Amino acid sequence: MNAPLPLVSESLVVPQPYLLFLGDTTEASFAKTAFGLAHWAPDQCVGEMALPGATVTTGLARITPAQARDAGAQSLVIGVANQGGVLGAGWIEALVDAMDAGLHIVSGLHVRLSSVPALKEAATRNDRRLIDIRTPPADLPVGTGRKRSGKRLLTVGTDCALGKKYTALALYHAFTGRGLYADFRATGQTGIMIAGGGIPMDAVVSDFEAGAAEVLSPDAPAQHWDLIEGQGSIFNPSYAAVSLGLLHGSQPDVFVVCHDPTRKTILGLEGFDLPTIEEVIEMTIRLGSRTNPAIRCGGVSLNTSSLSDGDAEKLLADESARLGMPVADPVRGGPAFEALVDACLA
Amino acid sequence: MNAPLPLVSESLVVPQPYLLFLGDTTEASFAKTAFGLAHWAPDQCVGEMALPGATVTTGLARITPAQARDAGAQSLVIGVANQGGVLGAGWIEALVDAMDAGLHIVSGLHVRLSSVPALKEAATRNDRRLIDIRTPPADLPVGTGRKRSGKRLLTVGTDCALGKKYTALALYHAFTGRGLYADFRATGQTGIMIAGGGIPMDAVVSDFEAGAAEVLSPDAPAQHWDLIEGQGSIFNPSYAAVSLGLLHGSQPDVFVVCHDPTRKTILGLEGFDLPTIEEVIEMTIRLGSRTNPAIRCGGVSLNTSSLSDGDAEKLLADESARLGMPVADPVRGGPAFEALVDACLA
Repeated sequence: MNAPLPLVSESLVVPQPYLLFLGDTTEASFAKTAFGLAHWAPDQCVGEMALPGATVTTGLARITPAQARDAGAQSLVIGVANQGGVLGAGWIEALVDAMDAGLHIVSGLHVRLSSVPALKEAATRNDRRLIDIRTPPADLPVGTGRKRSGKRLLTVGTDCALGKKYTALALYHAFTGRGLYADFRATGQTGIMIAGGGIPMDAVVSDFEAGAAEVLSPDAPAQHWDLIEGQGSIFNPSYAAVSLGLLHGSQPDVFVVCHDPTRKTILGLEGFDLPTIEEVIEMTIRLGSRTNPAIRCGGVSLNTSSLSDGDAEKLLADESARLGMPVADPVRGGPAFEALVDACLA
Repeated sequence: MNAPLPLVSESLVVPQPYLLFLGDTTEASFAKTAFGLAHWAPDQCVGEMALPGATVTTGLARITPAQARDAGAQSLVIGVANQGGVLGAGWIEALVDAMDAGLHIVSGLHVRLSSVPALKEAATRNDRRLIDIRTPPADLPVGTGRKRSGKRLLTVGTDCALGKKYTALALYHAFTGRGLYADFRATGQTGIMIAGGGIPMDAVVSDFEAGAAEVLSPDAPAQHWDLIEGQGSIFNPSYAAVSLGLLHGSQPDVFVVCHDPTRKTILGLEGFDLPTIEEVIEMTIRLGSRTNPAIRCGGVSLNTSSLSDGDAEKLLADESARLGMPVADPVRGGPAFEALVDACLA
């Protein structure tokens, strides 16, 4: 696999690998981030660290910050959330110790790390970064629409939360598995931690939304692919601004439509029917052609997690025949998914 | 004219009328905001105030903050910008005096008023507000798409900066001139100062863009009209996120397309042709129908400022015949503009 293409700005990068911090939690559901990273980015997790009283474990070796540093760790990730998204009382001393051992601190909590004086002081003293994943980089530019070199694929959707991150990651692994030069470009909190960088597109000021997407997938060699994690849906009345800015700024050559066949209305908004896959394809081409006239649909990614194997296989085949393009569930993989990858690269 | 419909949150309101502050400026071009308010909102300006050395005047009476307060002023507006958008050295004492006299302070400068300790202290002491027009209100909600009562008109455009604010203001005056119950809803800095409230939509975090537009035009009596200032263009590769969030959240019943017939490419982006008026109509209906299936185009507002009277009259008539709808220049007014107002109300 090729070395990842560096992002332009250090502020977009989260240094990997990680030491996963579990605090003093006794509730596995609070440690969702730690479990997610151990699952999605096992190569980037050297171990876990917990305070006395913690009963939750990811199964990774329990080590100290100094041991983690010796094993190559660059950052401690706060892998646990308290109710209210604040820092636990006993955590600050542990985080200061981690910085003294040479680690950066990474957080997806609502509270800003730099608002805690003891953390700010330790970061300055050790020349370490306090990385708040929810905070976009400062000084994002306004979009220009300038055509960039390299190739781009964006996952789009009929709605939120139905597999756009998973699909982009699966395509990234498939592309690199075929020996292609590719990077996964993360646009949400979990994706950013997995990828070791990215921009939380929903937290960007709307004037800079397209510009942020341009920064996220910079000029690249002609044969390079950026696999960009989509956000929301152009048809989602809450979040379409995020989706359109990301589409314009990403200027994708290819997009894949992500859909959950069991979902009938927009998540949380009962009055709004889900758009059809065909509507999403047509509108994405219409709007996306503004910054890339060559935009095309590579196929469809269906989330069939609630279907039996037989039902899923039949649905994928039926939808592929109906739409006249590859339709696959990346979780199930198989020939259907390989056909989707082929079509994206065609 | 009816009393304006109050906005839901005090944080969206800029208390009027104003005392216009000119600082110590000797360059009229730096006092653009003061001149704009004296021109656009003369009823809301009780006078001007300047420091020794100032040579610029709006022509309004030069008065003290205490005299302004006696004349009913609620706020001092910083009507002048320094290079770099910072506060002039001699200004702070004058602004503190104004708060001591009972005025709020309103600023469109880049520097935040509350970042100046002396201003913050005086505001707290006098229970006055420091209002930074560039800063959106905190705690904006995510959009819900819920249909609101009352009627709404949004100005949209083929691009930025070609008359969307002017058109919405002209329609507001025409509607209220006909005795209708209406409000102008401002979405940009100048509009907010003129209107005495609003939300700077380009400064809102993209996740909350549609929600901000929903807050800006709340439920209203059935016969009430909100005339909403548009921003950017759905076809502008830099700012479409702002435009789509505003469109979805505004859920307009009627829109008016604003266009400059002399502009051929997107402002500042030579590689991008301006969309046609027909493309903007069709796409605005397609996207806007997501939150208001009854959306329709009321007509077109052309900026003919660079044309002779004869050429302008001919162009307006030709375009109206070609498009089959009223086409007017609100600056020129006349029967064409009255026809546009009729069509919006039809």
